[in-house]
Amino acid sequence: MNPGTSEMHFVAALDRVPGMRGVLCLFEGVCSGAADGYARATGRPAATLLHLGPGLGNGLANFHNARKARTPIVSIVGEHATAHLKVDAPLTSDIQAFARTVSNCVRTAASADDLGQAAAATVADAWGPPGQIAMLIVPADHSWSQTAQPVVIREPRRPALPTGPVPDLRRPGTAILLGGTAAHPRALAAAGRISAATGARIMIARGVGCIAWGAGRFHAPQVPYFPEGALPFLAGVKHLVLVESEQPVSFFAYPDTPSYMTPEGCEIVTWVKRGEDGTAALEALADPGVPVPITPRQAVEAPCDDGPLTLDSLGLALAAYLPENAVVSDEMVSSGPKVLPYLAQAAPHDWMPVTGGSIGQGLPVALGAAIAAPGRRVVALEADGSAMYTFQALWTMAREKLDITVVVFANRRYRILDIEMQRTGANGLGAIALGPAANDMIDIGRPDLDWVKLSEGCGVPATRAATSREFSSQFRDAMNEPGPRLIEALLL
Amino acid sequence: MNPGTSEMHFVAALDRVPGMRGVLCLFEGVCSGAADGYARATGRPAATLLHLGPGLGNGLANFHNARKARTPIVSIVGEHATAHLKVDAPLTSDIQAFARTVSNCVRTAASADDLGQAAAATVADAWGPPGQIAMLIVPADHSWSQTAQPVVIREPRRPALPTGPVPDLRRPGTAILLGGTAAHPRALAAAGRISAATGARIMIARGVGCIAWGAGRFHAPQVPYFPEGALPFLAGVKHLVLVESEQPVSFFAYPDTPSYMTPEGCEIVTWVKRGEDGTAALEALADPGVPVPITPRQAVEAPCDDGPLTLDSLGLALAAYLPENAVVSDEMVSSGPKVLPYLAQAAPHDWMPVTGGSIGQGLPVALGAAIAAPGRRVVALEADGSAMYTFQALWTMAREKLDITVVVFANRRYRILDIEMQRTGANGLGAIALGPAANDMIDIGRPDLDWVKLSEGCGVPATRAATSREFSSQFRDAMNEPGPRLIEALLL
Repeated sequence: MNPGTSEMHFVAALDRVPGMRGVLCLFEGVCSGAADGYARATGRPAATLLHLGPGLGNGLANFHNARKARTPIVSIVGEHATAHLKVDAPLTSDIQAFARTVSNCVRTAASADDLGQAAAATVADAWGPPGQIAMLIVPADHSWSQTAQPVVIREPRRPALPTGPVPDLRRPGTAILLGGTAAHPRALAAAGRISAATGARIMIARGVGCIAWGAGRFHAPQVPYFPEGALPFLAGVKHLVLVESEQPVSFFAYPDTPSYMTPEGCEIVTWVKRGEDGTAALEALADPGVPVPITPRQAVEAPCDDGPLTLDSLGLALAAYLPENAVVSDEMVSSGPKVLPYLAQAAPHDWMPVTGGSIGQGLPVALGAAIAAPGRRVVALEADGSAMYTFQALWTMAREKLDITVVVFANRRYRILDIEMQRTGANGLGAIALGPAANDMIDIGRPDLDWVKLSEGCGVPATRAATSREFSSQFRDAMNEPGPRLIEALLL
Repeated sequence: MNPGTSEMHFVAALDRVPGMRGVLCLFEGVCSGAADGYARATGRPAATLLHLGPGLGNGLANFHNARKARTPIVSIVGEHATAHLKVDAPLTSDIQAFARTVSNCVRTAASADDLGQAAAATVADAWGPPGQIAMLIVPADHSWSQTAQPVVIREPRRPALPTGPVPDLRRPGTAILLGGTAAHPRALAAAGRISAATGARIMIARGVGCIAWGAGRFHAPQVPYFPEGALPFLAGVKHLVLVESEQPVSFFAYPDTPSYMTPEGCEIVTWVKRGEDGTAALEALADPGVPVPITPRQAVEAPCDDGPLTLDSLGLALAAYLPENAVVSDEMVSSGPKVLPYLAQAAPHDWMPVTGGSIGQGLPVALGAAIAAPGRRVVALEADGSAMYTFQALWTMAREKLDITVVVFANRRYRILDIEMQRTGANGLGAIALGPAANDMIDIGRPDLDWVKLSEGCGVPATRAATSREFSSQFRDAMNEPGPRLIEALLL
């Protein structure tokens, strides 16, 4: 939460309702992203408390990200007292308009008597299924007025089994695309059995909030990010069976590139709709007698040479030292394609990728996941450009003494834009020949960000790793220390 | 700007259109706030370039602040290519819905042929008068397609003189409330002459973007922030004459407090409407033969004792060393009432206060003002809580080598909320007796933010001042050094 004047009665009530735990964030985008991480780790919505329209505005990008993955969040937004709205005070705005940008489920409490009931309905709406960003706007006078109205808690709706027929999965060229809540360990194990029995390929959609990853379990690859990866990946698919997912599309449009990534003529079969229970559907179909095809875990040795740190040596160190049952919040952006295959060799863990594509998601998601899952090691793999967006998350990690290790991939570029500049053909000259003015909009060095100082400034101990040896030993140590820690991984 | 893939053609064009200067910010809220500061310093709109709906979302709070002060800004937002919108890609959102939250003037370019014309119309709309947040949404395919369509530049509309009668300003109990563009030096000098000739009080509205301040010129006080200040301030006013302003209202509503700050029965007379030329109206009425009543500047001595730094000693040092024609971006929040009277004793300067009340405005406004006004010294007076919101502005100050001195008021509280908690009666116990859970939502210490490290992490040299002597000497030195500098003023 990051409350203001209109929310003071809510804040004062925190000491009277022991079931509530308030976690202060120093920017609203941290709040919304942390609520996302909490729900990804638990399946249950967290609540945010924000201040009026502009405070909600600061949280919108991470609400957008959560909405795209159907992550449930209860968003409470304070409003001026109703009688004050007519005077157009400085902070007056159309909060419903802010709220609707990221949610279809927005209500304003109508009175003090209505407030409890409206809150219960908002919580129920957030559950979905599928999960919703459910907004409740609370005028200050409804908070400060008395009510004796009882509140009836609404039970959350649970996802149901799909009612349609099970598609024929034995047809050649069949692939099952897992999305939503169907990329968790149980769903993947069942999908592995189905694949072994039918020959269907199993793949994971983009934009999924939490994916069972690492070695020693059934491994399903994710549809690649760029069209030149996704198109060949899907080339042989004749029947794409959707489980809580949609037909894969390109993240961005490019001249002369299709928007849909499936081949011409591919049949799209929706087996399990969004909001239905993909895991239960898979388990109902899977034969428990069929062994789950496991990718065995192989020993990985962390590099300890004094050469400059590379993405390969960094990936090896992660694979070697990441503990079992860790949570990995991934906002590596351009570094992801190189590092993710190494993570697939690590101990089994939950992988939490970016979802809606708005940067600034990774640190808050790590924060929320760590609050949700005490005792589990959380690792945030963060591009430097993205990390700057919601870097205030570090302070809350320090305050709450969370076991989070942040690795900042410091390449000092919006590297993904180098790639995109080339792909869109915008420079007409190839990636290297950017003009100086354009280059300045992609270069985030000059001056270089000093992540050790930034982290220490927020109360999180930090070190810098420029060699493979330094990174391996720092990351290994971090996995064995309590509390937050940041490693600036210099990748130049 | 903070562009993404959809904006790559715009970015590439920066090297072909030398009249454009791209300034990279590492978060969109810095872009919108910097555009605000640029326009406050020049009266001319700057442009922002942001990436899709969520990127615009990150800029909304400072667009809101600018809108409330009628600061003109041209906001360009990239959109997916039109053919790609049907597939609901991860970053797809209703950009118009985001845009409408802070502006009534939103258009989407209809084609490559339309793009130049739409841009020209957006610039003209931004000028107003009064100034607008004018949004232009640019689908990527309109950027990458060819056009030979000529663009006709639309001349900005200029504000006109008011057409209504001049109110009788000699009636006892008359006060003139200056807002909008009518708090600049020329307007204030004319208002001073009018006051001397008629006996009318001159006062400045809240939410004005730029106010002529400091000694050696006509001084008009601003309507106080809190009702207990504003109500007695306005108590004797029988006829309030509005010049580019509105009837004063309370920032927030409180139980048993009126929303309007004017006394019962006070006549509200709109002389100069928003969008009309208040300065010209005042000058047309003022008799140039009447001398401007000047508040003489008195020598101020900066304290140099070794006692703990206080707001009084800090204010004295500002008054002693602030150079003439400086720009002061003020987001002191709870420290403002103590420090502003000292600034009124400083050399004449432009004071840029907060406008729409959403925190995170001060550092970006200082950044934009410094870009707009090379050669002038810019001082940002920043509360620590607010500074954390858009702290990424420091990096752009370093990159652009701007002559900005940032003073962070480090009291390690959202101090304003201590006051508001007491005022709203939310704790029912007086300000001191907050429960521990509520207190944790207002306390931003534990861990303490280290502003020296945060600043150095962004490439801005920094020092800490814990005593009056330290602050005086650091601030004096800063006024004589080129480039950005941060002083953490410890106020504990």
